[in-house]
Amino acid sequence: MIIAETILHTRDLIKQARRPGKTIGLVPTMGALHEGHFSLIRRCVMECDFSVVSIFINPTQFGPTEDLAKYPRTFEADTCSCRDLGVDMIFAPPTDQMYASQNLSWVNVEKLTDNLCGSNRPTHFRGVCTVVAKLFNIIQPDIAYFGQKDAQQLAVIRRLVRDLNFSVEIRPCPTVRDPQGLALSSRNDYLTPDQKQNALCLSQALDRARELIASGTTDSPTIINAMQSIILGQPQTRIDYISIVDSDLLQPLAKIDRPALIALAVHIGPARLIDNILVEPPAQKQ
Amino acid sequence: MIIAETILHTRDLIKQARRPGKTIGLVPTMGALHEGHFSLIRRCVMECDFSVVSIFINPTQFGPTEDLAKYPRTFEADTCSCRDLGVDMIFAPPTDQMYASQNLSWVNVEKLTDNLCGSNRPTHFRGVCTVVAKLFNIIQPDIAYFGQKDAQQLAVIRRLVRDLNFSVEIRPCPTVRDPQGLALSSRNDYLTPDQKQNALCLSQALDRARELIASGTTDSPTIINAMQSIILGQPQTRIDYISIVDSDLLQPLAKIDRPALIALAVHIGPARLIDNILVEPPAQKQ
Repeated sequence: MIIAETILHTRDLIKQARRPGKTIGLVPTMGALHEGHFSLIRRCVMECDFSVVSIFINPTQFGPTEDLAKYPRTFEADTCSCRDLGVDMIFAPPTDQMYASQNLSWVNVEKLTDNLCGSNRPTHFRGVCTVVAKLFNIIQPDIAYFGQKDAQQLAVIRRLVRDLNFSVEIRPCPTVRDPQGLALSSRNDYLTPDQKQNALCLSQALDRARELIASGTTDSPTIINAMQSIILGQPQTRIDYISIVDSDLLQPLAKIDRPALIALAVHIGPARLIDNILVEPPAQKQ
Repeated sequence: MIIAETILHTRDLIKQARRPGKTIGLVPTMGALHEGHFSLIRRCVMECDFSVVSIFINPTQFGPTEDLAKYPRTFEADTCSCRDLGVDMIFAPPTDQMYASQNLSWVNVEKLTDNLCGSNRPTHFRGVCTVVAKLFNIIQPDIAYFGQKDAQQLAVIRRLVRDLNFSVEIRPCPTVRDPQGLALSSRNDYLTPDQKQNALCLSQALDRARELIASGTTDSPTIINAMQSIILGQPQTRIDYISIVDSDLLQPLAKIDRPALIALAVHIGPARLIDNILVEPPAQKQ
């Protein structure tokens, strides 16, 4: 496994790896790799001839008051994991490689970034889109893997690829959860054991939504209220949003009458956690 | 010469043309090709193994009151010219190929697009950057050719490529002028013979600026005043801007103390024409 730190070296290695009929796969990450990332990496290694994991904590996707400084950095462990998983190359650029001079060029997706995480993180997705466009241009992968855990990010990147004609296929991978249901996230590291217990309310609220829909409830406010009760039943929780939106343009749905994304963001102690499920409208009674 | 109208067909042809050590060149145009375009195309054909000319009148770079509807369309003549010049492929997508659904993803370069043409055409460069990013992603050229005539566009695209790590080399080509000095432009077609005569004031003003600098004048307002007198000496002229800016970030220079771009935009009858020169500060007297 090669670890490349410069764009020039990376381009050179990719050039050597690129052969007709061979596929290059990319798993973009910010490091602090956990079983969620591993599931993406395993699939990449299995499906692609040359698999690249990028590890870059992208400053432009953090707001001024967010957790850039304390975001977990576990580079040694990450490289060991990648090596064990059969990754061919890690691209781990220092910040001044990715942003060599003042960055003046931005990629942005409108509409899909207006609500959910976009409301309280107004420059987040602009940072994500810009760094992903940069990574796509540097690595030129045939396939890129993104987790369903970051559902809005996934929808935004899919739209970006479609609108700007990037020559890459986006493969979404299911959210990985711990045995109790907590969606894996690098930010779970911020939690005490007690807070981790409290954080189960996110997946419990989503489970409740699923039950309600299975029993025929389609009214979004009713579902959101039930979810809210579960979250607020836990101490140290502050709801950022609980939203039911269509799964394509992420616009609010009053009723679940088409495929929908139920997504929430909740502050638990020092961490802001997100989770989501995709649901279908309940089967019509004949 | 192949004419491709769909993105799928184009990608397929490009895939066949791409071989190790072979270069793919792109000349992006809006058609209505003239000797200015031909100079870019000749260079592309000479320097690249597979040369592509794109012909697409990009709606997103026109403002709501601009000349999208009347922009000259000469596709038959354009294809003949390209064939004569030895072009391998024309990419001429209909609008619904390039903008298949509502475009929500935009590429933008800040700062460099704030003044000059950006002041009165606030969404112009966002449209240019977005369509150029799309063309780069579809064709994936090794080299792309842009005219110095559109100096701000050239500076913006260079910055875009650098900031977003597009794997393409931008080659600028000098402005081509008619024997009297008028910079060639598809929009010259809008002019009557009399207006064409009046339009010589643009290059005359730039010549005057060059003379003043050669004789040691470096004060920007003095140079701009002299240029303004020449322009306003002609009937039917309305100045959009006359600016002296640094040639990198396009920020106004009070003095020509570094490489500078002198650029102007002038309405002559129904046409808005632009022209520019690059200048160096006068040699220091010892």
